[in-house]
Amino acid sequence: MEEAAPEASSAAGGGPESAEARVTRLVLDTIAKRGKQHNPVTGSGGMLLGRVLQVGQGHPDAERLAPGDRVATLVSLSLTPLRVDRVLDVRRESAQLDVEGEAVLFASGAYARMPSDMPDRLALAVLDVAGAAPQVARLVSSGGSVCILGAGGKSGILCAAEARRRGGPNARIIGVESYGTYAEDLRKLGFCDEVLELDARDPVTLRNAALAANGGKEFDLSLSCVNVADSEMSAILVTRDRGTAYFFAMSTSFTKAALGAEGVGKDVDLVIGNGFAHGHADHTLDMMRTFPAVRALFEKRYG
Amino acid sequence: MEEAAPEASSAAGGGPESAEARVTRLVLDTIAKRGKQHNPVTGSGGMLLGRVLQVGQGHPDAERLAPGDRVATLVSLSLTPLRVDRVLDVRRESAQLDVEGEAVLFASGAYARMPSDMPDRLALAVLDVAGAAPQVARLVSSGGSVCILGAGGKSGILCAAEARRRGGPNARIIGVESYGTYAEDLRKLGFCDEVLELDARDPVTLRNAALAANGGKEFDLSLSCVNVADSEMSAILVTRDRGTAYFFAMSTSFTKAALGAEGVGKDVDLVIGNGFAHGHADHTLDMMRTFPAVRALFEKRYG
Repeated sequence: MEEAAPEASSAAGGGPESAEARVTRLVLDTIAKRGKQHNPVTGSGGMLLGRVLQVGQGHPDAERLAPGDRVATLVSLSLTPLRVDRVLDVRRESAQLDVEGEAVLFASGAYARMPSDMPDRLALAVLDVAGAAPQVARLVSSGGSVCILGAGGKSGILCAAEARRRGGPNARIIGVESYGTYAEDLRKLGFCDEVLELDARDPVTLRNAALAANGGKEFDLSLSCVNVADSEMSAILVTRDRGTAYFFAMSTSFTKAALGAEGVGKDVDLVIGNGFAHGHADHTLDMMRTFPAVRALFEKRYG
Repeated sequence: MEEAAPEASSAAGGGPESAEARVTRLVLDTIAKRGKQHNPVTGSGGMLLGRVLQVGQGHPDAERLAPGDRVATLVSLSLTPLRVDRVLDVRRESAQLDVEGEAVLFASGAYARMPSDMPDRLALAVLDVAGAAPQVARLVSSGGSVCILGAGGKSGILCAAEARRRGGPNARIIGVESYGTYAEDLRKLGFCDEVLELDARDPVTLRNAALAANGGKEFDLSLSCVNVADSEMSAILVTRDRGTAYFFAMSTSFTKAALGAEGVGKDVDLVIGNGFAHGHADHTLDMMRTFPAVRALFEKRYG
């Protein structure tokens, strides 16, 4: 067992009526009630960056880790025993908090030593979705077709980059992003053949537009990286017979996906995004070195 | 569009205080509110057997179907517009209702013509889980190891039969079933090398016992066929690195599976059971002919 103290790095936020104060109250309430952090909408937890306070006897990495080392946890905060004494800053754009507190990381809990060649918050931001790109690397083959929902967000961009790297120049990669600014960011990165500004909650419109962008054909693979509910049918409807719909979105409903595919008679493999894959932290951190334009964008957004 | 009238076949159930009356009220309430049937606990809907009232113009099977034909819908009732005028009988053991009413099956909705060589309720019972065995047939290879949770229920038994057929005599198939009567039924069928009477909601106990029954090794494939919540971790913990945990259970929570696997650092493919697979109705009905002992058991339970 090892304890990591989340770091303080800036001054306290706005007044008692501000959105920042409301976020602070909600997070402190959740942690007080559950002893863990659990987003009430998505059910997910995020992760943390901090300094090691103490390494428990018998920890498998006892010889690699020492008090003071800077680590990021790769276990969801919804599974990490946690105490937060004070929220120092609420960073709304990057969905990050600066806090004082203590957390317990079990010996089986994955973590990453912070890299020295990039800012902490950038590393933390990409480690939070470290499972996405390694899974895509397993799923995309040369020349395949991929439709990414929520492609302009953090995991969506990493998926698009990885899909292009694995799929090569003959792959057909279509990104769907409802937020205009993110759609434009995604276009500039050049991973996608087309970027469609559409809402993934409108499956019929989305299917028509996505297939039109793919020569009228359904896709080998769809990746759902949205952060809204009710996007299951879009992912299912754009996927070809015996293709794969892979759900990274924590807002995905198991029954909506299972019964939705059955309801429309789609023989498609439906996969729950596993946040863990071997070597996922190194894989994803390394993408910040391989894709400097992604790094620059993420530093702007999340740095 | 085609309409199927669910069939009446027996007299009305007990008095106003009976469990049957409560089920009737709950189902009629749900259908009145939603225009569809939706189990409030599992989120699933089941399916129906009825006679064709009318075949819509342009239906792709217009030449195969005629009013009076007996069909079973293979689309979840949670997606089937429905009106129920009267509940005639509540069959608790088989979780079936006899009703008078009308339903609409869209042209894209899968259905099966009822076979002539088996009782309707048997066919209906197995068609309700028609997707399970065909998926198992794709996943099990010769000599593989399979752990089935909820293996003594309807889909669990079909999965065990299919796993043995595909896996052959050298496959290692372990069934887990918490209900003693069902566990004994499953033992007698002989598909499983061992049947463990354990609760899938206790993942640590279950993992220890299941691995002990598999020479200390984790399984290539786990199949969750339970009907209770909080069984995700058991399926994940018994599965080997890069193996597959396949969730047929409609009680599965997407976030519990995704974050659970991440939390314990298990690099396992997590799959949502798709109720549809090509040829699933014929595949599963045919198992009643190939496996007479399964047919006899299902007739006793669900006939």
